[in-house]
Amino acid sequence: MNIVITGGSGFLGRRLAETLLERGVLHRADGRDAPINRITLVDVVPAPGLADTRIRQITGDAADRQLLERAIDAETTSIFHLAAVVSGQAEADFDLGMRVNLDASRHLLEVCRHYGQRPRVVFTSSVAVYGGDLPATVPDSLAVTPQTSYGTQKAMAELLINDYTRRGFVDGRSLRLPTISVRPGRPNAAASSFASGIIREPLNGETSVCPVGAATRVWLLSPRTVIECFIAAHDIDGAKLGANRLLNLPGMSITVGEMVASLERVAGPDVAARIRFEPDPRIEQMVATWPGELAATRARELGFPSDKNFDEIIRRYIVEARIGAPQ
Amino acid sequence: MNIVITGGSGFLGRRLAETLLERGVLHRADGRDAPINRITLVDVVPAPGLADTRIRQITGDAADRQLLERAIDAETTSIFHLAAVVSGQAEADFDLGMRVNLDASRHLLEVCRHYGQRPRVVFTSSVAVYGGDLPATVPDSLAVTPQTSYGTQKAMAELLINDYTRRGFVDGRSLRLPTISVRPGRPNAAASSFASGIIREPLNGETSVCPVGAATRVWLLSPRTVIECFIAAHDIDGAKLGANRLLNLPGMSITVGEMVASLERVAGPDVAARIRFEPDPRIEQMVATWPGELAATRARELGFPSDKNFDEIIRRYIVEARIGAPQ
Repeated sequence: MNIVITGGSGFLGRRLAETLLERGVLHRADGRDAPINRITLVDVVPAPGLADTRIRQITGDAADRQLLERAIDAETTSIFHLAAVVSGQAEADFDLGMRVNLDASRHLLEVCRHYGQRPRVVFTSSVAVYGGDLPATVPDSLAVTPQTSYGTQKAMAELLINDYTRRGFVDGRSLRLPTISVRPGRPNAAASSFASGIIREPLNGETSVCPVGAATRVWLLSPRTVIECFIAAHDIDGAKLGANRLLNLPGMSITVGEMVASLERVAGPDVAARIRFEPDPRIEQMVATWPGELAATRARELGFPSDKNFDEIIRRYIVEARIGAPQ
Repeated sequence: MNIVITGGSGFLGRRLAETLLERGVLHRADGRDAPINRITLVDVVPAPGLADTRIRQITGDAADRQLLERAIDAETTSIFHLAAVVSGQAEADFDLGMRVNLDASRHLLEVCRHYGQRPRVVFTSSVAVYGGDLPATVPDSLAVTPQTSYGTQKAMAELLINDYTRRGFVDGRSLRLPTISVRPGRPNAAASSFASGIIREPLNGETSVCPVGAATRVWLLSPRTVIECFIAAHDIDGAKLGANRLLNLPGMSITVGEMVASLERVAGPDVAARIRFEPDPRIEQMVATWPGELAATRARELGFPSDKNFDEIIRRYIVEARIGAPQ
């Protein structure tokens, strides 16, 4: 069993690779576990700290079809397509977003089609496909209304995944990811970057500037749980999903104010006091268009894991940051 | 005011060109009527019978960016993007469908972006973006679930139109077209071709084979009304539409059996007897995934025209076929 992870050097890609290496097995097409022989990571930079003979790294542009042809071969049974340009960057550079978020996905699906092996493809979409005037809780059946180029590109790629699956070119699954928190490392250009920054920086003894108000509602999932969702989505029998391969992942709905209160409970008032609220209209506007809560009925019914308690997520982050989980 | 019509040699493209020539004016950006100086038709074959000095014809592949660069220029204020590969053909030739239904739309939007004139772009999408298990009446807010590559490609292009509009590259409007009946001419590769064939062929003294059952429900609009909808969609103030440029056009919901009864009332039982029912599972399956009725609430509220009476549509077709309206 050979697995490809695009965006393999990103936080989620590396964490997925480590989890798969530990796990050692993954479902094959017949639904039985098979040993993982090789994991190919594709990214613009190599992933450090993955010393395992099963790891192969290919460095370059995920929107370069030749690169994907080197990464994906006739032995590739599973692909986790995580490579993306984040929301803020796709908004700032329209062409780059189209190339990485849309064209790379299309090239990847075309390479799979070429080999005819019908690999399982787990694609990471985003709740940013929703936007504008939304009901308090977004049902699975609601039309997408992206208000960012990032959300538009993700929604287009979801449509491709469904059609390539229907035509038998791949066996796809699109997961609409909530905001992931707490991410380790440094802030990035995602408009949702603050959702990790307001926890991570204060715990590191640094000030964190929160660009959105305390009442802002976030649909959130922890790194550990989203990786479990990736594997659950991979392993599920395609027949259970039918023609529609879309899943709104079951996050938890929490306000920024509640996140700050969690941090205060877990790490004390001095740590929580390191958050400074400085509204940034550009980011506030983007975040305001995203849904604060989704029903995620289908994913829940299929038994996808979720998080219940943000205090618990912070505690786990503190332990993982100390033991040096992928940064 | 210079107008571009892609798919300009098709039935709707020609009919639109003729209607615009007769009309002589169209709204410009400030909402006031301006005289039409030139209409550029783009299609794989030239349109016959449009002898008017305002008509310019460019022949070639609508997915060829150079061709679109010749057709669209800095003077282009309005584009009607009708060029498409129909449902049956896009299902039979996946790559052709992707190229014409998706890539041509993207090239067209890119050329508009290049000129920076922000033209009004009326894009013809389709109710084929819906499919699968649908409510009896599809609300505007329902998520798209295309079950054909054609529907997928149209849904992707709609997303592009919305995002290019949001970014100020164009001033777009996407219309989800019902099945159009009665189309003149000959059967084509559209799965919905029967909806015209069962009226047109019997009126011509020919037998028509209907590949779907009499109980099949069709969401339908007449050629005259859909052209009125194109012009209404063009002329509406973009501010009235806001960020979401999608409109489900208000068709009429009618069964194939009711269409046959209409034909019998208008043309007599001998004519209606020329319809032979021979189910074709491939076509039945495609048509069964399309919605039989849509609420089309938004388009109705915006005052878009509709049809009420299929007898009337047949009578009008008979008159137009006799006087040689565009075939």
